[in-house]
Amino acid sequence: MNFADRLLNEIDKKQNPSVVGLDPRIEKIPQFIKDDVLEKYGNTLKAVGEGFLIFNKRIINSIKNIVAIVKPQIAFYERYGIEGIKAFQETVNYAKMKGLIVIEDAKRNDIGSTARAYSDGHLGKAELIDGTKELIFDLDAITINPYLGSDGIKPFIEDIKKYGKGCFILVKTSNPSSGELQDKLLISNETIYERLGALVAKWGAETKGERGYQSVGAVVGATFPEEARKLRKIMTENIFLMPGYGAQGARGKEIINSFNKDGYGAIISNSRGIIFAYESMNNFSEEEHAEASAKAALDMKEDINRTLKASGLIPW
Amino acid sequence: MNFADRLLNEIDKKQNPSVVGLDPRIEKIPQFIKDDVLEKYGNTLKAVGEGFLIFNKRIINSIKNIVAIVKPQIAFYERYGIEGIKAFQETVNYAKMKGLIVIEDAKRNDIGSTARAYSDGHLGKAELIDGTKELIFDLDAITINPYLGSDGIKPFIEDIKKYGKGCFILVKTSNPSSGELQDKLLISNETIYERLGALVAKWGAETKGERGYQSVGAVVGATFPEEARKLRKIMTENIFLMPGYGAQGARGKEIINSFNKDGYGAIISNSRGIIFAYESMNNFSEEEHAEASAKAALDMKEDINRTLKASGLIPW
Repeated sequence: MNFADRLLNEIDKKQNPSVVGLDPRIEKIPQFIKDDVLEKYGNTLKAVGEGFLIFNKRIINSIKNIVAIVKPQIAFYERYGIEGIKAFQETVNYAKMKGLIVIEDAKRNDIGSTARAYSDGHLGKAELIDGTKELIFDLDAITINPYLGSDGIKPFIEDIKKYGKGCFILVKTSNPSSGELQDKLLISNETIYERLGALVAKWGAETKGERGYQSVGAVVGATFPEEARKLRKIMTENIFLMPGYGAQGARGKEIINSFNKDGYGAIISNSRGIIFAYESMNNFSEEEHAEASAKAALDMKEDINRTLKASGLIPW
Repeated sequence: MNFADRLLNEIDKKQNPSVVGLDPRIEKIPQFIKDDVLEKYGNTLKAVGEGFLIFNKRIINSIKNIVAIVKPQIAFYERYGIEGIKAFQETVNYAKMKGLIVIEDAKRNDIGSTARAYSDGHLGKAELIDGTKELIFDLDAITINPYLGSDGIKPFIEDIKKYGKGCFILVKTSNPSSGELQDKLLISNETIYERLGALVAKWGAETKGERGYQSVGAVVGATFPEEARKLRKIMTENIFLMPGYGAQGARGKEIINSFNKDGYGAIISNSRGIIFAYESMNNFSEEEHAEASAKAALDMKEDINRTLKASGLIPW
């Protein structure tokens, strides 16, 4: 099935357009998990990887009936080399087994022949010695950086069409310095991010599903609501993946501009605010970190749905 | 030692500013290597990874006295998941053991806190459970994509200064569609790539070594000599990593604009033209693929040095 259709269907089932970022940091893993893996594997990279996996599985179990989508950021796993990437792969497999849609935040990008290799590994299939092909990381969707232009995007779009996958292309990112390049004004009297928004809408045209959205989406920071409003007009059929909710400062009211009149068109991501919620909530111990995450995920769902409802945009 | 100083010293030793891209593709690995790993590991991902490693080691041994720098493109290893990334790590370790400088072509990029995780994993150290830190992939340098602006660059620059590492920031890429975004004209009457060139020169200012070059370099496609000429004026202290020589069409005369008056300032990368040279050279069999690579690397060195000499720029 077309990725965008599948994504919207899952959002409908959970009545929740939010995304939980699975971005583990060793210093924030509860001590009882660290003690467990230290005893089993010593003070090693393997202990860190196994600790991440235990932590992620507990979070996934606690939120799997609340949210439809998780987004592991591969940087937090690559930080620990092979052992980290093993934890990434097992986290992805586990989340998919639990019925969640998994968007890999990887921001990959390269020239055409190299983008083909990335897409083979992350979305599609890679060729073995005898010529047969095998699924590798098998993500539902991946984020990509468009600085190299369309020939670095095409291989991903081919696999999106072939395997029912999706991508989210960086347009206006959530970080403080995103404007240094993205906000620069072109002589055509549009900003770089607006130009890119128009390109993304064009690149994804052939990936449109039955529900009217493309499987090619855009990354638009929840921290920039005015920019999101402009982009919504340029990219009517693209789903916005919006980081920046929670730790980066945005709340429900900041993301309302990103929804279309039908109440769809944006998925809102929160990482630290959900997975490390136990640190900021008084009623949860470290042992109850997963319950705290479920509570934070529910609070976020309610905040978003309340805002959608107040604007008359709620679709369920 | 400062990365730029170390890089120039090694270039002087070999009298060669060229870079060999280690970008293996299974369909181009010689049959005798494929037969060997098929027998040992069957038609598996592990067989592919081991095949890549055998192939890379043979190339490294054949070129190690000719070139100073290799550049594995991690996409070709990620294509095969964990087994591919193991082959990447072992290739990096082997090349360093043989005295080569290793630049990872990864084009990583993200917001500040996530760029920190990438830099920990690829250049610096990652924190274990007890708080001690460990080197992970331990590359000499990495390529990065600047679309997110300075806060995604800073963590890399911190590690460049702390660990004597380097980076090359994408400015004007070698691929046909690079102009779709990079060539757009800003109202300040400069192109996006020129604006970025100026930013890179500023970002790297504190990484300047004793030989006058920064450890923060730029990726500038050898396929765009006129753009490189403009950038050379904007970025006088930055070393250009120039892909596009060979398979992508550039030769010695296309890269001359990228060198400074002192004969330094550019390193020229060739992947397919060196590592798969046996396919296009009549006098070499598949079994002699590594000898063909050595011959191709020598030809490239001579082509570049001849061009430098003709322009009075040769420094040795």
